[in-house]
Amino acid sequence: MKLNPVDLIIKKRDGGEHSREELRALIGGIVDESLPDYQLAAWAMAVFFRGMTDAEITELTLAMAESGDTLDLHDAVPAGALIVDKHSSGGVGDKTTLAVGPIAAACGLPVGKMSGRGLSFTGGTIDKLESIRGWQAELDEPRFRRQLREIGLVVAAQTADLAPADKHLYALRDVTGTVNSLPLIAASIMSKKLAAGADAIVLDVKCGRGAFMETLDDARELARLMVAIGDGAGRAVTALITAMEQPLGRAVGNALEVAEAIATLHGNGPADFQELVEQVSAEMVVLGHRHNVDRSAALGQVQEVIRSGAALDKLRAFVAAQGGDVAQIDDPSLLPSAPVVVPVPAPVAGVVTAIDAREIGLTVVALGGGRRAKGAPIDHRVGVMCDAKVGGVVEVGAPLAWVHAADEGIAQTAVARVQAAYAIGAGRETVGSIVLERVASR
Amino acid sequence: MKLNPVDLIIKKRDGGEHSREELRALIGGIVDESLPDYQLAAWAMAVFFRGMTDAEITELTLAMAESGDTLDLHDAVPAGALIVDKHSSGGVGDKTTLAVGPIAAACGLPVGKMSGRGLSFTGGTIDKLESIRGWQAELDEPRFRRQLREIGLVVAAQTADLAPADKHLYALRDVTGTVNSLPLIAASIMSKKLAAGADAIVLDVKCGRGAFMETLDDARELARLMVAIGDGAGRAVTALITAMEQPLGRAVGNALEVAEAIATLHGNGPADFQELVEQVSAEMVVLGHRHNVDRSAALGQVQEVIRSGAALDKLRAFVAAQGGDVAQIDDPSLLPSAPVVVPVPAPVAGVVTAIDAREIGLTVVALGGGRRAKGAPIDHRVGVMCDAKVGGVVEVGAPLAWVHAADEGIAQTAVARVQAAYAIGAGRETVGSIVLERVASR
Repeated sequence: MKLNPVDLIIKKRDGGEHSREELRALIGGIVDESLPDYQLAAWAMAVFFRGMTDAEITELTLAMAESGDTLDLHDAVPAGALIVDKHSSGGVGDKTTLAVGPIAAACGLPVGKMSGRGLSFTGGTIDKLESIRGWQAELDEPRFRRQLREIGLVVAAQTADLAPADKHLYALRDVTGTVNSLPLIAASIMSKKLAAGADAIVLDVKCGRGAFMETLDDARELARLMVAIGDGAGRAVTALITAMEQPLGRAVGNALEVAEAIATLHGNGPADFQELVEQVSAEMVVLGHRHNVDRSAALGQVQEVIRSGAALDKLRAFVAAQGGDVAQIDDPSLLPSAPVVVPVPAPVAGVVTAIDAREIGLTVVALGGGRRAKGAPIDHRVGVMCDAKVGGVVEVGAPLAWVHAADEGIAQTAVARVQAAYAIGAGRETVGSIVLERVASR
Repeated sequence: MKLNPVDLIIKKRDGGEHSREELRALIGGIVDESLPDYQLAAWAMAVFFRGMTDAEITELTLAMAESGDTLDLHDAVPAGALIVDKHSSGGVGDKTTLAVGPIAAACGLPVGKMSGRGLSFTGGTIDKLESIRGWQAELDEPRFRRQLREIGLVVAAQTADLAPADKHLYALRDVTGTVNSLPLIAASIMSKKLAAGADAIVLDVKCGRGAFMETLDDARELARLMVAIGDGAGRAVTALITAMEQPLGRAVGNALEVAEAIATLHGNGPADFQELVEQVSAEMVVLGHRHNVDRSAALGQVQEVIRSGAALDKLRAFVAAQGGDVAQIDDPSLLPSAPVVVPVPAPVAGVVTAIDAREIGLTVVALGGGRRAKGAPIDHRVGVMCDAKVGGVVEVGAPLAWVHAADEGIAQTAVARVQAAYAIGAGRETVGSIVLERVASR
């Protein structure tokens, strides 16, 4: 950090636009630890109030992407193939990667993901996959590349030090009231994707009361910013803004979600999740083929690999390659299951108007299915199955949902919480598409 | 700090009003070091953008005032006497305390000041007084009180730990771009005055290009905030907004300023400085007499103690009590003087339209008359005498000012800087009162 950090803070505070050099100095100061956290915090708060231009956000993202290791997986994919990544802005019951990965791979797109473990009320993909007996997340890099080359699908725990400046800035934002800054959110997401070596990216931007972006305006702006960063960085980006007024699909909880992803690869997923998986996969196919197929053709290809069983075969091969028990894929009833399964009765009759996704997620954490602290163990068996979804008509006493718990006592507490998370009243019985809008490059 | 600091930051970020309890928790977190600087910095930036209500500012000030030692000097003053303090918001050539202290004391107001040393381009009162041979700033508290009781005037280096939370917050603001927040400036100034035990306070709020407050609007708002804090804390406060388009008086530099203060006690100070000293002193007399004398009577009393020599006698007694050489007061030519004194010639003819006070102050620092770093020694002899002031007519080559330097080389560099600090052109030859406005309690 050669520039005076106070000058940079004051420039942003007074509404100025940072140069590339200034943003590089700022991120450099995080990397070499010459920039004190109190200056970074003041700067982040100034960004909260003043925003950043698209050019600034792009430069910030590139600087963060280059602050640590950067992956290049092109040697592990067919010559000329694009690396297409996907990202979801987080949600409860979001097992999209478990279904989209095999589908995209079955469509010929190489999928090599490094993933994290979950914390708080949103679960992690690695945690979900660890429901499968024997499945191993820890792969060294040569093995990661070999599996990507041979099977075209690999998901492993993150070993590379991707975008460490983003990690530091995010942790600081978390404790300084500066999380809710769209430019900083966009830069954070995109820096990790760029560091991971994606040529093209499909973004699933959740929108609604259960999501980080509560309003459609915010979701649109976040999507627009990430597409703009992609444009600036020379990566094709398509963002789908998707509804998050309730948990995604029915299953919330690790093994339950694996089973639901398998059902989706059979074409039998819950309507909202099935649709989301197919749409995201189709967007990936479009980008992977450099727009040489249109969306309807891509969707046809996606539905064909589901129908033919090719996507499911890809999941089996991927699980087997990482030491997992394929019998559990073929018969999901063999996945770990909870000893106690109790219904959540509807307290009144009516139409389900909303399901508080965050509360459902926190209930699953309380059941033992998620972590309160980094490194804590989790119980893969437990969770909540939300049978009644928004728009559904329920009778008094009929099961809204099912709690899967380790014991009766804990189950009853969860039942009360899930019951309270459901809003039942007079409402529309029809539900629109889960995909609300689409924002794309060019 | 029991409340969650992130919640307080977010509350202020979103425009909320802090409760007394919240502000106490925040300051408590500074005092017990449980509040990390990065959270305090983010909060200060949020305050910069959102401001604070008068009630919040008052509570913040009181919490900071009570964060360390608090002085009560009533046992060292006549029964029933009020302790009236004065504060100037800083300026170049501001030797006001050197003249106002003796005048107020001669008018019967007890004046006991703890003062700091100067840093950067504004000098400190202690540094100026140390120009006087033998004068001692370091007094222990019993001796401070005894001198206040016996002479009614004492100025000493600060020994008490006054408002340490303010000291910490100020230092952090300095490096996080959050100095220019009027609520935080007002709270900082007033917290120190309250901790020092003032019953009533006269504030000299400088306004203009050479001052911290560049616009009259800002100066008015700062004055209003400090009067409001006084109201909330039960202290009478009068603020004078004074012009700062040039250095105050003619002298900038330690011994030169002492000599100018002595001249002012003879009634022979430069017009702007003489007026400011008399007005500030008169406001102090009004407050010290609980408004039982009006301003014109108070001004009469001030002018009388100057005319009679009572104010000068008070300075002599004060200097003698602290070990200083009274001969230098009686004959200021005995004060330390620089070996090289060179004129600064006017490069063009015209009217002086402005003198960059900050640049003059920095020139004096470069001459050795101020500190660049805490604890550095200073040369009391050097400085700049600004003979030509704003509104003055100058001929080409006539001396605008005189540089007092340690050697010729350094003097010539200073001459060029001082010359450049003068703006000469077509302008008004008349100059209004240095006191622009007055803001008072009730």
